[in-house]
Order: sequence, then structure tokens, then C-alpha cells
Amino acid sequence: MRLIADNLRITQKAIEIAVAEKDSLPLQAMAKLCAMAGADGIDINSGPLYRNPESRMAFMVEAVQEVTGLPLILDTSNPKALKAGLLACKTPVTLNGLSLEPSKLEHILPLAVAFQTEIVCYLLYPNGHVPPDSTERLNVAVSLYQKCIDAGVEPDRVIIDPVVVPLSWQDGLFQAREVLTVIKTLPELLGFPVRTIAGLSNLTAGAKNLTKKHLAQQTYLPMLAASGLSIILMNVLNAESVRVALMCRLFSQESIFTWEMVA
Amino acid sequence: MRLIADNLRITQKAIEIAVAEKDSLPLQAMAKLCAMAGADGIDINSGPLYRNPESRMAFMVEAVQEVTGLPLILDTSNPKALKAGLLACKTPVTLNGLSLEPSKLEHILPLAVAFQTEIVCYLLYPNGHVPPDSTERLNVAVSLYQKCIDAGVEPDRVIIDPVVVPLSWQDGLFQAREVLTVIKTLPELLGFPVRTIAGLSNLTAGAKNLTKKHLAQQTYLPMLAASGLSIILMNVLNAESVRVALMCRLFSQESIFTWEMVA
Repeated sequence: MRLIADNLRITQKAIEIAVAEKDSLPLQAMAKLCAMAGADGIDINSGPLYRNPESRMAFMVEAVQEVTGLPLILDTSNPKALKAGLLACKTPVTLNGLSLEPSKLEHILPLAVAFQTEIVCYLLYPNGHVPPDSTERLNVAVSLYQKCIDAGVEPDRVIIDPVVVPLSWQDGLFQAREVLTVIKTLPELLGFPVRTIAGLSNLTAGAKNLTKKHLAQQTYLPMLAASGLSIILMNVLNAESVRVALMCRLFSQESIFTWEMVA
Repeated sequence: MRLIADNLRITQKAIEIAVAEKDSLPLQAMAKLCAMAGADGIDINSGPLYRNPESRMAFMVEAVQEVTGLPLILDTSNPKALKAGLLACKTPVTLNGLSLEPSKLEHILPLAVAFQTEIVCYLLYPNGHVPPDSTERLNVAVSLYQKCIDAGVEPDRVIIDPVVVPLSWQDGLFQAREVLTVIKTLPELLGFPVRTIAGLSNLTAGAKNLTKKHLAQQTYLPMLAASGLSIILMNVLNAESVRVALMCRLFSQESIFTWEMVA
């Protein structure tokens, strides 16, 4: 299981201001902290970037690349920003992401093909809503995967995000289970070991009690891993969660175990 | 997922002395602590009880029953002790346990039939050794399950223990994964939602670093839960592990989630 930092997001005030003022230091400090914390990649979540999308995304990518060679995930619904980010990227890059929403199929899918990137595919309805259960998510997965293949994306460049929703939703516990079912079922359904990604922070969106929030995340994370998750998008600055993630990864290793391997 | 306390075991010096001296207080104190910690049942691990097996097991059962009505699991390889424990038990009881070892098939299986108890079935070879992988464990499961049915045990009284081994074994990481596979596969293999049990403490047997030991247990526990484990045998006096176990259980509930439900 690979660990991708979700910390570099524009919803954090310091990042928002840094991007608006083109001040690279806060971005670089955050990127460096993520790398030191054990991230295998960094998700650059710029938001939709309504103003100056090209220059702002290029700025973010360039700032981060000055301090780390980690693979980047470009996380925005703005195709102009995505393209500018792609042009600025020196390392392998992943687009985050595609869904059955018509505008995304029209504008984002061609970028993934043209730049031969990996692409995160969200299991959402064409209207952007979350399907009610695993069966509906799997139906969406088949459609969306087929659209990728038809457009010319290589199967091993597809990464599927079953969409973790907040536990606080009315059917939050049910949805959490359905996500596990989707992750377990996808490889057989698509006929190859398709990779999956999940955003852990979303599970506890709105939680006020930090202890409970971390307990929920640190319990659900091994459940995702045991279901076969390939990539976890998470707050890598929570040291305890990272220790759990690395322990999950250890359980998947082929090597001989020693207690020295445990973080 | 039900939580069974593994704390009442004769390998603990205080328990050993209490049993030898027929001093019920240490047993009752431990049983009470387990009940208060959230245990759904208590495993009475008396060891083989070479001397006075009947009176010692009856003493343990009676002492515990004076302070709690929790279901008991009688955990000994000594059939005489098991029978004495069964006769002393007032609440539903589980025998722990059966395997393909000839002496157990001969002496323990008839007790489960005669007393209509639940019975834990260990996936071990007839010589008591641990099978090397999930396929071999599943072969054992089919044989052992059939022996139970042939003897007259009701299917829903069978509880299968895939046998968690220490991570420190040469193939400890592999075995940990194989145990998850067995738990996931058994219901389909046997054609009904057969219950499973696993002993969590065994995973970290020999570990000296408590922090690492707890991390390994608290990561593996949700993996077991996500694989469909029915019953976890664990140290319920580790409050953090119990919080993780209760969070696992919460993820399996049908109810509407609220943060007040998190321990």
C-alpha cells in the first residue's frame, strides 16, 4: 500500500495564501514535511482555481518539485489547471480525477491519454452524486473503466476511487462497508488486479473529537488494507496513522518479519 | 464481532497460585475486570491440569460464575477437566477446543455432542502442527467440520479457529495473511456463514517492545474484522485494543452512526 499525502490542499489557509501570493516557502515546507513523514507521493489539491488556473497550478507544481522528487497527483476539476500542471511536472504524474460527469469525460480524459498519465476514476454518478451501495458503484466502475479503455488509457494506468463518505452521513456505516466490498470485488469484476485508492480523511469529515476521529481512521485503514487497497490518501503528518499504515504495508510484505521492521 | 477475554489463564502466576490454593478472589477480581472492560465472554484457560483436573476446573468455573453471568469458554486439552467444567457451568458454554488430533476427536468431540455445546475447531494437522498455508488450513477445515457433523454437532455450534501464529515465526507475515484468507473463504467453502474465532495475543508472542506489540495487534485486529471474523479472543484489559475492537464492531452495525457511539 502506497501512502499519498493529502496535506497540500488549498483549503488550508496557509496554502491558500501562499498560492495567491506566489510564496513558495509554505508549499515547500509542507512538501518536505510530507516526504520526511514517509509519503510515497503528494496530492496537490488546488481546488477549482477559478482565477489564473494555469499559472497557479504551475507555480504549485514547480515549488514542490524544487524540494522533492516524489510523484505528484494533480487534484483539481479544472482542466486548464491540470494541463498547466502536467506541462510543469518532471516526475510521473497522476490526474485526480475522472468520473462519469460529462465535463470530466470531455476535458480530463483526453489529457490522461495525451500525457499518458495515471488517472484516478471516482465511482460517482454522471450528476456527481455518490451511488447508494456497492452494486451501483461497481456498475459505475465498469462503465467508467470502459470509457478509459475506449479512449486509449492503458488498463494499468487506471486507479479506481470507490469514494469514502463521512461516517456522519445517515448511512455512513453502511457506505463504509460498501466501499470495502467494492475494493474486494473490483479485481475479479474487471479481470485484472486494478489498483484502488481511498481518501481516509473524508471518513471523519466534520468530527470534532480528535481522539475519536483518529480511532475511526486508524481502525478503518487496516480494513481498507485487508480488502486489498493499493493507495491510501491521508494526512501523513499524523504520526500514529502513518505507523498504522506502515504496519499495514508490513503485513503485505513477503520478507521475513523482525520487530525492528515495525515503526 | 464478539470480544472474549483471554486474561484468565493459568500461565499468569497469580491465577496459577489461586487455582492451586483454591483462592477464588484473584479469579473473581480478574473476571470482574474483564466484564467491566467490555468482554462478551471469558475464556477459562486452565492449561492441561495434570493434577486434580476435575476439582480445579470446577473451582475455576464456580468462582467466575459467582461474579459474572458472562458466557464461558473452557480452554483445556484435558477431557476430564472439560467434563467437570461443563457440569459446573450454569450459562451457555463453549469447548476450546477440538482439532484433528486423534485424542481430541476421541475425547472432546463426544463431550460437545453430549452437552450440546459450541465447539472451537482448530485448523491443525492430526499431529498438532500448523498447516503451512491457507489451502491446507481449508482442507483441514473441511475434514474437521465433517467430523463434527457426522458426530451430531449442529453446524451453527461449530466455531473455526484458523490459528494465528507469532509474527516472529520465519513465515509469520505470510501466515498472518493466510489466516485472513481462511476467514474470508470459509463461509463460501462450507456453504453457510460459519463463525470464526482468532486469538490476537498469539500474533505478538515473544515481543518485548510493548508499543510495537500493541501497534501490530491493533492493526491486525481490524484486518481480521474486515475479513469477517466473528469472535476475537484478546487481552480486554488493554483499553486501546478494546477501543479498536469496539470501533470494528461499530463498522459492522446497521444503525445510524453518531460520534457518541465511538468509545
